Amino acid sequence: MKATVLVRPKQGILDPQGEAVESALGHLGFSVSEARVGKVVDLEVDASDAGEARAQVERMCEQLLANPLIESFEVEIHG
Amino acid sequence: MKATVLVRPKQGILDPQGEAVESALGHLGFSVSEARVGKVVDLEVDASDAGEARAQVERMCEQLLANPLIESFEVEIHG
Repeated sequence: MKATVLVRPKQGILDPQGEAVESALGHLGFSVSEARVGKVVDLEVDASDAGEARAQVERMCEQLLANPLIESFEVEIHG
Repeated sequence: MKATVLVRPKQGILDPQGEAVESALGHLGFSVSEARVGKVVDLEVDASDAGEARAQVERMCEQLLANPLIESFEVEIHG
């Protein structure tokens, strides 16, 4: 089953990469604000149904993909 | 207008970060394959409608956010 995980810096947590992107876009003439940079992980999970796949991917996030102190995550299962 | 950009390594392009994630998840006991790691960029764009916002964000991708040789991008506008 295919899954997509979005991992983002939590609100209030400093995001230097987002600040760099915002500043660089400003220099290129774009008017943007509140840029935040996180990561997207696509993977294929060995699970029999969407519920089990989601439960597995949430455990992956807690154990490896996200740092729960500073990052939030969102899981999508694509069947 | 809020926009979300997903930037992913193109198919066939080596993705060492994805390989590392896949291997680490395997060591933790998860059965996963085809892990690929990209980035997600959230930002607020100064545009009057969704079409203009999308056009602006696509230009940002071409100029800064993605490397078109090795990465593909996907733009979502949240109104």
